[in-house]
Parts: sequence; structure tokens; C-alpha cells
Amino acid sequence: MQRYFLENKQVNEQNIIITGDDYHHITRVMRMEPGAEIIVVNNDGQTAIAKISEITNDAVVGAVIEWKDEEKELPIHVTIASGLPKGDKLDYIVQKGTELGALEFIPFIAARSVVKWDSKKASKKIERLQKIAKEAAEQSHRSVLPAVKEQMTVSQLIQYATSFDYKLIAFEEEAKRGETARLAKVLTEAKPGQSILFVFGPEGGLTTEEVDKLSAAGFTACGLGPRILRTETAPLYALAAVSYHVELLR
Amino acid sequence: MQRYFLENKQVNEQNIIITGDDYHHITRVMRMEPGAEIIVVNNDGQTAIAKISEITNDAVVGAVIEWKDEEKELPIHVTIASGLPKGDKLDYIVQKGTELGALEFIPFIAARSVVKWDSKKASKKIERLQKIAKEAAEQSHRSVLPAVKEQMTVSQLIQYATSFDYKLIAFEEEAKRGETARLAKVLTEAKPGQSILFVFGPEGGLTTEEVDKLSAAGFTACGLGPRILRTETAPLYALAAVSYHVELLR
Repeated sequence: MQRYFLENKQVNEQNIIITGDDYHHITRVMRMEPGAEIIVVNNDGQTAIAKISEITNDAVVGAVIEWKDEEKELPIHVTIASGLPKGDKLDYIVQKGTELGALEFIPFIAARSVVKWDSKKASKKIERLQKIAKEAAEQSHRSVLPAVKEQMTVSQLIQYATSFDYKLIAFEEEAKRGETARLAKVLTEAKPGQSILFVFGPEGGLTTEEVDKLSAAGFTACGLGPRILRTETAPLYALAAVSYHVELLR
Repeated sequence: MQRYFLENKQVNEQNIIITGDDYHHITRVMRMEPGAEIIVVNNDGQTAIAKISEITNDAVVGAVIEWKDEEKELPIHVTIASGLPKGDKLDYIVQKGTELGALEFIPFIAARSVVKWDSKKASKKIERLQKIAKEAAEQSHRSVLPAVKEQMTVSQLIQYATSFDYKLIAFEEEAKRGETARLAKVLTEAKPGQSILFVFGPEGGLTTEEVDKLSAAGFTACGLGPRILRTETAPLYALAAVSYHVELLR
């Protein structure tokens, strides 16, 4: 069933009214008629099934049939910060990361990032990644459209991190030293509504200087198991671990 | 450091002797000389650092410096059975599944598999997937080379499954119904050395008939969280969940 992300003013307890681009999509692209059912999601992430009752020249009007109760979003808000990787790996991270429940993605310029984005290229890249996130959010039945932020430096990332409850670095040196407890400790303590910022290095990994700088700013390095994970696989492990712990294990 | 998977007869407590393709790789490709150190892995998955002491016309001889204690392998043996998906998704599943610790991959012919492999195509595909598994095993420092089996029918899969301790189906209908407990129950009970066979449908999902058939044969359907995961993402969630539960949470 087609899903539309609407503003709160367009959806109340009983009725919906849709104008603008979504109106165009419903009437011209999908060619829906009165009687058709759609899924609408408001700004608060509440989801309802609505039935179209009337289509005017500029609005689709309908009635809410049923508010859906199930929570599709991860109760812990996870932001994935990735050191700019090569090729289309960010596409993969954003697509699969969205399926797995990430709230936000931040590309950052790591010392070992081979790839550089000039500002024109960066805009296009971010726009493309936002499209990928939207499409993945629709397919995986998310109630929230994950955001893809503009690229940051490590310093900007540290500044941005001050608003997070937990700040973690996925660092393979920790895994090699047998560190197994820190992620589990965070996930055991974290309460619904809290936020985790997770930092992943590019293909060459983070430098010791970067890890020291992040640690000094309150980040904790943790292992993600004994096997070395690629830059585009590690975020998926982290998100699956969060989901498994807080949604399945509870 | 270069890693070589050897037969038990080539490695004893103190010495190694390498001939054949690996001899060729060490002497002609890597051009190593006496004094060089390599990692060797025997059939039992035991890993050692060895130093080359002598290179003859047809053998590399060396001494074991140190047996490495750390366990890189998932203590639970996980086999991933995937309904034949489209395009190169199996490449992703095998590559990332190997990074994440899977022991074995089985492509199977699902009712909704769009792709069909004739026997000539199947051989080439399996060979290619085995190369992908080997390269991923080397990069992620595995002690075991995951196997890629010949494609099976659902009936053959059921037959093969009789040797497994746990048989699970990732089924989104269960997730939609809010099923959250079964995977956690299995992972809480499973003991080191036990095995899990995990079945995933192709893009269109498994049919009700397939799920019924598998259930009648002792498979348990379980949810992997409330979000819909693509056919190539679901196995990664499952593997990360196993690793997180048995390696990090313990």
C-alpha cells in the first residue's frame, strides 16, 4: 500500500487532507480514485490507514480508518557517522542502514579517506543519498525518514556529538584486544528515547590520533566481535545488535 | 600478514612444511625469504604464526613461533540458506555473511525465485561464490573457509536440515505479528558447537506452502525485528544477532 509522509496539520484523529506534490502523486501518478486506501504517517511518526472519500481540483480528502499501533522505529535513536569511504559504499550504508533502523547518517572526512567531496559534488551526493534513504524507508515501512547530514570534519562531529547520550567508536584494535563488554553495557543501560552516535572509520581505519581525539571528547571505543568487518558492514552489525538487544531480547 | 589454510599433515606442534600452490604463492608471488613470518591455519582451525627457516626446490619449511589462542570463529555454527535472489545479491550475502561468521551458504530454489540456474551456470556461479568466500575469509581473519553448497530444492534442504540442532525461518509475517521471542530463545539455549540452519526467502518472500512445509519438518518461523529487511540484508541481521548474543553479551 502506498505510504505518504504528511505534516501534522494534514492529519487529525479522523480526517486527512492532502495537497501539493503528494496530491499530484495520488491523482496523476497513481491515478487513485475515491475508495482507494493509503498509509499516512504524520510528523510524530504515527501511522494510519486512510480511505480516500473525495478528490477535488487541488486536494485529496479522506477518512482515517484505523490508527496503527505497532512501533516500527528503533526505541534508541542511532546515528551512523562514516569516514568517507570509496565508491558507492555510502549508498549501501544508507540503504541497508535505513532498513535496519538508523535515524541519521553523517559522512565525515577521516584522515585515511581517499575520497574527497568538493562542495558541488557534496550537494549532489547528499541529495542522492537522501533519495536512497527515502526509498529504503518506504520499502522497510519506517515511520521516520532518516536524515543524511552534510559532510563534517572530525572536529565538527565532536561538536555535534555533545547532544548525544552515548558516543561510541567501532575500533577493531579494541576487538583484537578482546574487548567485548562495552557495547553490551551501553545497550543494557540505554533507555527508550536516548541516542547513540556511532563512529566508523573508512577502509584504512581511523588513525590513533583520531581515536585519541574522539576519546578525549568522551567517545568510547568498542569491539564488534572478533572478525574484521569492512567499513560498510560494521554499521549494519551495530544496528542489528541494537535492534536485537532492545527489540527482541528485552 | 599473509594467511595460509593448510592440511593437518603440513603443520605439527613445532614445524610447518608447505608444498604445491601455497609453495608457489610464497616463493613466486610473495617472493618471501627465510626469516619471513606467515600465519598458518590447520584443518581444525588452529592458527599459528610461523617463521620460514628454509626454502628448497619444492617446499617451504618453517617453525611455529606461537600458537594463537584467540577464537575468531562464531562458537555456534550458522548456515545461511537463501532463496535464489536476483542479480548479484548472493555475492553480497556470501561476502558479508563470511565477514560476519557464517559457516556455510546454501542457495535454494524458492517458488518465488525469478532466477533459475541451469547446471552449467550453477557450477560457474558456485565457483565464483567460493572465491568470494575465500577472499572475505582472508580479509576478516577467519580460521575457517565457509563452504558454498550446490543449489538445493526445498525438499533437499529439509533433508539436509536433519543434521542441525536448530532450524529457523526468517519470516516477516511473524515479525508483523509482533513475534520477538523465538530467536532470543534459541540463542539463549544454544551451546557452543551446536548448529543453526537459517532459511531466508527471495525478494518475493516465501510462500505459505513453503513455510508450512518447512514448519512441518521442524523449522520455527521467527521475526527479525519490526522493519522489513531485504533478502540480502536479513541474513546479515541474523548473523550479527548471533555474534552479539554469544560473543559480546555472554
